[in-house]
Amino acid sequence: MNALQTHVVDTRRSPYARLQPVPLQAVKLTSSFWAPRMQRNINTAIPHLHDLLEEHGVVDNFRRLYGASQPARRGFLFTDSDLFKWMEAAAYAQVQPQADLHTRLDDAIDAALPAQGADGYLNTWFVDERRAQRWSDLDSAHEMYCAGHLFQAAVADARTRGDLRLLGASTRYADYIDQTFRQAGRPGSCGHPEVEMALVELFRQTGEERYLSLAGHFIDQRGAMRQSGINGHAVRALYYLSGAADVYLETGREDLMKGLLAQYDDLLRHKLYITGGIGGRYTGEAVGKAFELPNERAYTETCAAIAFIFFTWRMLQATGEAVYADMLERAMYNGFLSGVSLAGSEYFYVNPLAYDGLPEEDPWYAWARKGLYTRQPWHECTCCPPNVQRLLATLPAYFYSTSREGVWLHLYGSSSLETQLVNGVTLKLEQTSNYPWEGKVEITLQPSVPAEFSLFLRIPSWTTRASVLVDGQSVSAQPGSYLELKRTWQPGSRITLDLDMPVTLVGADPRLADVTGRAAVMRGPLVYCLEGIDHDLQDVRHFRLPAGAAFDIRHQPDLLDGITLLETDGLAPTNLETGSLYTPLPLSPVSANPQRLRFIPYYAWNNRGPSAMNVWVNKDRSLP
Amino acid sequence: MNALQTHVVDTRRSPYARLQPVPLQAVKLTSSFWAPRMQRNINTAIPHLHDLLEEHGVVDNFRRLYGASQPARRGFLFTDSDLFKWMEAAAYAQVQPQADLHTRLDDAIDAALPAQGADGYLNTWFVDERRAQRWSDLDSAHEMYCAGHLFQAAVADARTRGDLRLLGASTRYADYIDQTFRQAGRPGSCGHPEVEMALVELFRQTGEERYLSLAGHFIDQRGAMRQSGINGHAVRALYYLSGAADVYLETGREDLMKGLLAQYDDLLRHKLYITGGIGGRYTGEAVGKAFELPNERAYTETCAAIAFIFFTWRMLQATGEAVYADMLERAMYNGFLSGVSLAGSEYFYVNPLAYDGLPEEDPWYAWARKGLYTRQPWHECTCCPPNVQRLLATLPAYFYSTSREGVWLHLYGSSSLETQLVNGVTLKLEQTSNYPWEGKVEITLQPSVPAEFSLFLRIPSWTTRASVLVDGQSVSAQPGSYLELKRTWQPGSRITLDLDMPVTLVGADPRLADVTGRAAVMRGPLVYCLEGIDHDLQDVRHFRLPAGAAFDIRHQPDLLDGITLLETDGLAPTNLETGSLYTPLPLSPVSANPQRLRFIPYYAWNNRGPSAMNVWVNKDRSLP
Repeated sequence: MNALQTHVVDTRRSPYARLQPVPLQAVKLTSSFWAPRMQRNINTAIPHLHDLLEEHGVVDNFRRLYGASQPARRGFLFTDSDLFKWMEAAAYAQVQPQADLHTRLDDAIDAALPAQGADGYLNTWFVDERRAQRWSDLDSAHEMYCAGHLFQAAVADARTRGDLRLLGASTRYADYIDQTFRQAGRPGSCGHPEVEMALVELFRQTGEERYLSLAGHFIDQRGAMRQSGINGHAVRALYYLSGAADVYLETGREDLMKGLLAQYDDLLRHKLYITGGIGGRYTGEAVGKAFELPNERAYTETCAAIAFIFFTWRMLQATGEAVYADMLERAMYNGFLSGVSLAGSEYFYVNPLAYDGLPEEDPWYAWARKGLYTRQPWHECTCCPPNVQRLLATLPAYFYSTSREGVWLHLYGSSSLETQLVNGVTLKLEQTSNYPWEGKVEITLQPSVPAEFSLFLRIPSWTTRASVLVDGQSVSAQPGSYLELKRTWQPGSRITLDLDMPVTLVGADPRLADVTGRAAVMRGPLVYCLEGIDHDLQDVRHFRLPAGAAFDIRHQPDLLDGITLLETDGLAPTNLETGSLYTPLPLSPVSANPQRLRFIPYYAWNNRGPSAMNVWVNKDRSLP
Repeated sequence: MNALQTHVVDTRRSPYARLQPVPLQAVKLTSSFWAPRMQRNINTAIPHLHDLLEEHGVVDNFRRLYGASQPARRGFLFTDSDLFKWMEAAAYAQVQPQADLHTRLDDAIDAALPAQGADGYLNTWFVDERRAQRWSDLDSAHEMYCAGHLFQAAVADARTRGDLRLLGASTRYADYIDQTFRQAGRPGSCGHPEVEMALVELFRQTGEERYLSLAGHFIDQRGAMRQSGINGHAVRALYYLSGAADVYLETGREDLMKGLLAQYDDLLRHKLYITGGIGGRYTGEAVGKAFELPNERAYTETCAAIAFIFFTWRMLQATGEAVYADMLERAMYNGFLSGVSLAGSEYFYVNPLAYDGLPEEDPWYAWARKGLYTRQPWHECTCCPPNVQRLLATLPAYFYSTSREGVWLHLYGSSSLETQLVNGVTLKLEQTSNYPWEGKVEITLQPSVPAEFSLFLRIPSWTTRASVLVDGQSVSAQPGSYLELKRTWQPGSRITLDLDMPVTLVGADPRLADVTGRAAVMRGPLVYCLEGIDHDLQDVRHFRLPAGAAFDIRHQPDLLDGITLLETDGLAPTNLETGSLYTPLPLSPVSANPQRLRFIPYYAWNNRGPSAMNVWVNKDRSLP
């Protein structure tokens, strides 16, 4: 540990940021939900992935360029990015006192840096006989994508350990890219955006304006801000939008904000899974058209949920609007968290919303089967695992922000914050909550002296009623907004927030044909699902939820690391095999038997072996 | 023309064939529905595709191997198959008196044959520097797939024109393959089945048992007959099953029939579109899992519908069971026919069951956009166009079969048949019908002398009631079966078949989540759809069909080459944009205005420019 303050997306001096970040060191996350996940990430997952990166030759891909032995390069052309992303995760993880990743991180840095060329170029694919092909295939070759991940790792290590070796390599490489493209007037940008976000952070870290200019240059070269909707490869599109948001935060370019709002709106209205996942189309790993949101064939790459979190976080920092925090929470607890096992070291690549419980038989899918319906520690394309790790390593930074007015609470869960307010007052904030299982949140404020400032409490849109008591006095609050509590706060002030957290049945826009006649079960921020293993391995996709279902809500500490179960009486069809796919109407009613339905949080599925799973449950006809 | 009798799938001597084919020359198709389509195929489409094959270098790919000029090879590695498939179409088309394709066919043969090696190998990809890679990539290299199409072209030309040049090349090539694989005990089979069907036909044409043995060998090497369900690449799976059925027809192997029945059953119950299309999954052009039948993202390659026709035809020949003829008709009038424009020379690659009317915006789809929602004369992978052409060229052969008992009528439409019965009697059969627009069929029998035999009339499963009059006497008939009329037929005997052809609303197995709450409109063998252009270009996907809808049925000879329209009063939503994809239940009802719904046959969509289309229509809640 050292005295550095680590800001993850460092908008402290960004002129168009409504909110400013708190340093990672300022937040102690003690939430019984998140703290163990962070621990497992640091103690188990990050070291294990490092071993796997060594085992699969990803680090050797660097060593071979200068070492005595010359093994063949291994893996996809973008494997460098996997190591850089891992470095970023390890660097941010190192903020936590119990982390001991110095040796691993230094080993990786020592392995990677000597591969950098005299011109600054650093890439293990375009070497030897491919050297002449540098920048020749911007669409597919991922060169700047890999560079961007290097820059992000560099920024993380500079901010956390104060180690500037990666940063030095990054500025040399970024200067080379800037000369090659922007300064030389060479058109084009990387087919897989990522470097834009990274360059803005490099600018924030170094103060060198040219990196910001280069980021804006690439945003404009790609030209996708002129679109009124989001489309194409989901991760690419969302990284691009995140980069554009970063450029907006620094420049205030209105054309960018206009495009950001339009594409965010398109997502919210037409292209977002209820889990916060994005990507309805396997082919091209794409967002898909409006309402192209199949459940079993949801692609919803784990990386896309993470990219959406990046995008929505930047929009939140720019605007302070509650809708972005709602979406942040939605993605965090569902579409992102489903990507990682409870043990912490296995990952989904895709995150479907329904599963028949059967293995994929298609022989063409041999490569994709692994990790499709069972989380795996390693993927041939291992982009998701280090992405999960870097997000979990920076999680505390997403709980709070500050602004000139005061302090913002975005996410709930036991934690404490120590921060300096703009007037120089030191504020200690203590949050106690059994979130997401209970909606009650107790907050204690300890300003160093009585001080006037605002406390912004997020009132989630999912709650039906929020009760707020400030030192015993009731305050009214509106779901789907930030409640601003502005007053002179005394040391020891107590705020109690009580969010009604009923079980809610959710329906969808009627144009979303894949869920016609179905409902999703939610409670608080969590999307729930049925899993076969809780129902004698039956095909839970065909269970029915009757009208007026009353749910038993029961916390079970010994199940799936502790979850709140939802149970109700429903129906299970007795025999669906009618012998004919298509029959003149009216169809015979399907006979059904009573069936106790047990819902678990969606994120927790597939942690007891593969069995059928379903999010959107058939409504019995009598349900409105 | 010559005196040859051309049998398309020649099961005349197949010991396990319940039915035998009638020669193409024996059938005169005068149906106002099919005859013009055959004409356009022969007069326009086949010559035009030949020009395109020349233009895109597919023929030059052969010439370059021995010619003075050496242009680079063009196109995918399987382009040879496109030329061979075209040859097959041209050869069979040449049966029709008005066809004049001799010169084109001879030119193509003259171009292709000199490229054959001394060992018999004939392929334009594995030459020059790739020569050493022959047979090294059975999974993907399509070598035997191309060979199979050569053999089928050869059989067609031998049977039609009596030209044996292609046949000679084919037997040399087949002998070489037999030596290389079966006789040498070398494991493996082509990743894209096709050669199996072709080898059985080569056996039927030449009498050489080793071709049949080789076909069986490849069927067994692939081993997919041991599966209880169908999966993987749709066209590959269906060609494989067709080849296995061919081997069954010759050998009676019960293990094959068991697998054929199981996989057909899996199709019928779980994996078939209502159009007779197959392939719910873009990735891998695959059949997909059970009930993986999305509408807008239906892949349903035109070639897969054709392959299904091949498979179901062989099952019909093997068994004489009516379900196969039902499916033959279903695919023919819907999933196959939608693949070709009314003009005859433009083709769909994929055949979706719904379309939003909007262009594909995803930049990754630039290559796929062409031909995705507009039929095109040429595709970069141009497998479908010559496949459509060879099926249309052989269409008359699918109308009738014979057996020891007599004559079978599978498809209805004005036509005549002249055939020899097993007892030597010559039978002329005249069929008059305005099918598929009307269900009335008049049949006149002219045996050369009074003769006892059976006439098997297919009673389609879609009819609600079939009236049959034999020389004025009523006979009862069961939908979904063949009605056997066995008696001593006099010259001039008249049979009147009257199939009730009401508009039928069809529902689906409740497990088919993509059509929950929806109905398909059918009349006779035709699946109908709504198209935007008939509804002021509105998004017809959201129209609603109320309970008890009464349809006006109106034939319109001047629309879309003459179609019977179905019209009824329905509802169109006034404003679907609610601003939120997901909302707690109950949802606000969607307001709707009365809207006249006009249904056209599915096959005819997209012939007036692209606009929205929908097969499965939302049912108004009151509909059962």
